[in-house]
Amino acid sequence: MTDSDDPIILLTTGGTIDKLYFDALSEYQIGESILPRLFAMARVTQPFEIEEVLRKDSLELSDADRALIAARVAAAPSSRIVITHGTDTMTETARALADIPGKTIVLVGALAPARFVESDATFNLGMAFATAQVAPPGVYITMNGTVFRADQVVKDRERGAFVKTR
Amino acid sequence: MTDSDDPIILLTTGGTIDKLYFDALSEYQIGESILPRLFAMARVTQPFEIEEVLRKDSLELSDADRALIAARVAAAPSSRIVITHGTDTMTETARALADIPGKTIVLVGALAPARFVESDATFNLGMAFATAQVAPPGVYITMNGTVFRADQVVKDRERGAFVKTR
Amino acid sequence: MTDSDDPIILLTTGGTIDKLYFDALSEYQIGESILPRLFAMARVTQPFEIEEVLRKDSLELSDADRALIAARVAAAPSSRIVITHGTDTMTETARALADIPGKTIVLVGALAPARFVESDATFNLGMAFATAQVAPPGVYITMNGTVFRADQVVKDRERGAFVKTR
Amino acid sequence: MTDSDDPIILLTTGGTIDKLYFDALSEYQIGESILPRLFAMARVTQPFEIEEVLRKDSLELSDADRALIAARVAAAPSSRIVITHGTDTMTETARALADIPGKTIVLVGALAPARFVESDATFNLGMAFATAQVAPPGVYITMNGTVFRADQVVKDRERGAFVKTR
Repeated sequence: MTDSDDPIILLTTGGTIDKLYFDALSEYQIGESILPRLFAMARVTQPFEIEEVLRKDSLELSDADRALIAARVAAAPSSRIVITHGTDTMTETARALADIPGKTIVLVGALAPARFVESDATFNLGMAFATAQVAPPGVYITMNGTVFRADQVVKDRERGAFVKTR
Repeated sequence: MTDSDDPIILLTTGGTIDKLYFDALSEYQIGESILPRLFAMARVTQPFEIEEVLRKDSLELSDADRALIAARVAAAPSSRIVITHGTDTMTETARALADIPGKTIVLVGALAPARFVESDATFNLGMAFATAQVAPPGVYITMNGTVFRADQVVKDRERGAFVKTR
Repeated sequence: MTDSDDPIILLTTGGTIDKLYFDALSEYQIGESILPRLFAMARVTQPFEIEEVLRKDSLELSDADRALIAARVAAAPSSRIVITHGTDTMTETARALADIPGKTIVLVGALAPARFVESDATFNLGMAFATAQVAPPGVYITMNGTVFRADQVVKDRERGAFVKTR
Repeated sequence: MTDSDDPIILLTTGGTIDKLYFDALSEYQIGESILPRLFAMARVTQPFEIEEVLRKDSLELSDADRALIAARVAAAPSSRIVITHGTDTMTETARALADIPGKTIVLVGALAPARFVESDATFNLGMAFATAQVAPPGVYITMNGTVFRADQVVKDRERGAFVKTR
């Protein structure tokens, strides 16, 4: 395992995982991240820090946004990074992170908002947080119960699931 | 990563994670495992099988029970095993599994029943399921947001948390 | 109390209470009603029937829709009716029901989808189901912890709450 | 409806509704009431006050306890009272309240703790809170989706449900 003293850093960028319903607007928007509450509920004692980078649906991320995310990952004072991200363009952001050396970087999101009773969010976050501790440096995606190498997976939008490419 | 074609096998032995309240008895008992429902909610597409071994609070496990669990792990047709277990004697069962070669074995439980709204169960299961896919052969415990080597952790019952021993 | 042998009839018309998130569409739509599951969870033994009338956001209801709802209420073989409805035009539909004699009619909805962990949906449904059993014939709205006479309430959209008008 | 300016008073006495699991003790106990959080989640704007009277399983209530509850109800500066209570001896406490004039008194509990995902607690509380607003003075029990007059109901412990006696 990557036995590190640095806290695990979680960067939030938006996506379905943090979508809220705003009645006054009759619409859904990405809100304040629910991650702190989920980590408290999970009784996590392992040191970690949560930093908000963006609040965007991943279909709206620009190249500049992805470069920003990459810069934040590279600058983070830790070798273990988890990034919450919309699922639709997760693999594109993964490509922008591929050349960052010496860090275990895990992209994670959810197919239903974490605030829903029946969401995959909490399970996925557990997967990501463990992968950050155990996997060797590289970029990973933890969705649909699977730890994928980020360069070996694609989201099948019709099926609503991530599948291994090779 | 341990790239295996065998399904991940989950063995349930009881513990707080599956405690239910039975009103007619005015008491709590370990019931039918909630794991199948949690895995559906988590949209897990990775092949897995759930098998019930016991329904015991871990304070009630005998040496014979631990030997049974070890036998089931050794016989399981997979190199990736997750065991749900009460938290109080998880490390004892881990010792009974220490000599099983060639398998990544992850013990996991919860400090509050999975059926509670605010439980660590789902996050812990996500951690365990990922660790089973990524960690090299050996015995692990995934609790309190941490992937522990099972021979390097103890449960501090006063604090209600697992802590690293060395 | 209105001591009746007829089952209480629940008519679902849509609204936030039954909004689901469809990942493939990256949007929210009103889905199959969650009411049967909520009533099972509430261990309701009182006879009732659930009938779907519409699946619309209440801002999209036409006069023809409201006339349909009124016709269904009038034709229902029961003196106790609960109608789930979007909150934005609940009072308009109430006006269309005002002349139906001999029935206790309760409009209810939610400010957050019932599928959210932190929703007012379940509490509101409990209020509505009790009001249907206890209140004399007339039209009521049960929102924000209050049983309103439907001709004495308005939704303050800015505050996101129902308030008494007189 | 009982159109009152006094806040509705909620008296908590314990029971399953507020049972928590204490891992350090490996047992369940009645804890701090979850009612304030449930009322916030339900977006209740109707004035109310919550006061703790006891934290007991209803099988443990003595005559002195029931007399205390009755005294608190009689002294409460409101004509609308809701009492959370264990379900097993709810009807006994109801008898101790039968002679209090001019108040609508509603006993309510749950067959599963409110902290469980699948609990009847929230629906029951909604029923009780509405009944307190609508029903004429007297003592009521709101369980299993039904508003019962407290002198016309009994708990069938085998079936785990409240049934009308006449």
